[in-house]
Amino acid sequence: MTNFRLTLSYDGSRYNGWQRQGNTRNTIQEKLETALGRILEQSVDAAGSGRTDAGVHARMQTVSFRAKTDMSAAKILAQLRRWLPEDIGAEALSEAPPRFHARLSCTGKSYLYRVWNSSAPCVFDRKYVSRVPEPLDIEAMREASNALLGEHDFAAFAVARGKKSTVRRIGGIEISREGPEVRFLMSGNGFLYNMARIITGTLLEVGRGCIEAGEVSAVLASRGRRGAGPTAEAKGLCLWETRYE
Amino acid sequence: MTNFRLTLSYDGSRYNGWQRQGNTRNTIQEKLETALGRILEQSVDAAGSGRTDAGVHARMQTVSFRAKTDMSAAKILAQLRRWLPEDIGAEALSEAPPRFHARLSCTGKSYLYRVWNSSAPCVFDRKYVSRVPEPLDIEAMREASNALLGEHDFAAFAVARGKKSTVRRIGGIEISREGPEVRFLMSGNGFLYNMARIITGTLLEVGRGCIEAGEVSAVLASRGRRGAGPTAEAKGLCLWETRYE
Repeated sequence: MTNFRLTLSYDGSRYNGWQRQGNTRNTIQEKLETALGRILEQSVDAAGSGRTDAGVHARMQTVSFRAKTDMSAAKILAQLRRWLPEDIGAEALSEAPPRFHARLSCTGKSYLYRVWNSSAPCVFDRKYVSRVPEPLDIEAMREASNALLGEHDFAAFAVARGKKSTVRRIGGIEISREGPEVRFLMSGNGFLYNMARIITGTLLEVGRGCIEAGEVSAVLASRGRRGAGPTAEAKGLCLWETRYE
Repeated sequence: MTNFRLTLSYDGSRYNGWQRQGNTRNTIQEKLETALGRILEQSVDAAGSGRTDAGVHARMQTVSFRAKTDMSAAKILAQLRRWLPEDIGAEALSEAPPRFHARLSCTGKSYLYRVWNSSAPCVFDRKYVSRVPEPLDIEAMREASNALLGEHDFAAFAVARGKKSTVRRIGGIEISREGPEVRFLMSGNGFLYNMARIITGTLLEVGRGCIEAGEVSAVLASRGRRGAGPTAEAKGLCLWETRYE
């Protein structure tokens, strides 16, 4: 068996997220496994670095899979580019060490959230931004984001899912304005379910003046979802980078 | 009657071009006139700076129309943003001098043609680029483009349409590479039917080595469509700028 490491990009607009699930059709994992099955003439299980929700995009999703094949990685990559739909891109493929696993080996991720902060139209990138026409106080959002840096229990910024640890380490949250766009680039050793979108939704509430920047520490300490802001919509979010040692 | 000047952007992917025509439905002009008709409660004729073909995009299309109304331009603009579909953007609207006409007053235009010059996928901008995986000789294309600068009879670079003059003045053709993308920015006092796409198609043939850069002068002088390259596909083209004195 050869172990492979694949880098994928995708426009998540028309998919039910990364993960193949019971009756949920039309996931990115399903499209990929179907293509790999045709190319390699065997059933293939593809592991992603993590799930992305329905409507969320990826610039760099890392995937690992094992297959019994003599086909070179270059050949498989060329075939994948033929078989995958045009909104899923096979960026790179290489053989990986036997123990490499896209989820278990992953040491960090970054997410980019794009907000179109204008009442003007956004025609060309409309599927990749969330519209917030009200003025946003960038400095207040930066101040609030500082409270989230470092290692914390992020239960307040996640949708509860089982009893696993909710402690994560956020290395950085960069908030920048480029013309009518406000960008949130968040990096950490891992993100809980919906965490990137709840952090963004909370910072946007701070930017609008609905939550005080100073309150965010207390919300974090509360470990309760109630104090945080709403979950920002999926289409503004993009899995930006996955990191491995 | 008040004369208005409107700036529109659009993703032309799902439209049959700018111009409303006999039985051709789903044009950008039709969508705009329908929205204006609802807002202003009267029939409105909108004149564009020129036609764009089916599938061609616009970053800046200028439109003029007259209406009998007391509504301010700001109010009409806000209403347009509510009524237009999300792939047609009302960028700006102002009152214009009575004699201003988007087509007749136009003194120049620029078109941008985007080529994705790589076998790698282009997921996010896939609707706005034309894929050319073969290597392109940028210097040869630049040399060839020089033959087109200035005032010429461009009959060889247009689809024949009636007996009007085919003389146009091309002010500049800038060809640049940005990562995997090659961009052609063409400006002139006017473009004949399909001219921007035939110029690009011809330069791409030069870039591939199928036409010699030195041959382009002879093609131009021939005034016959046969010597030029194929018409580059619509989706790579964008009406970039419209100019008025």
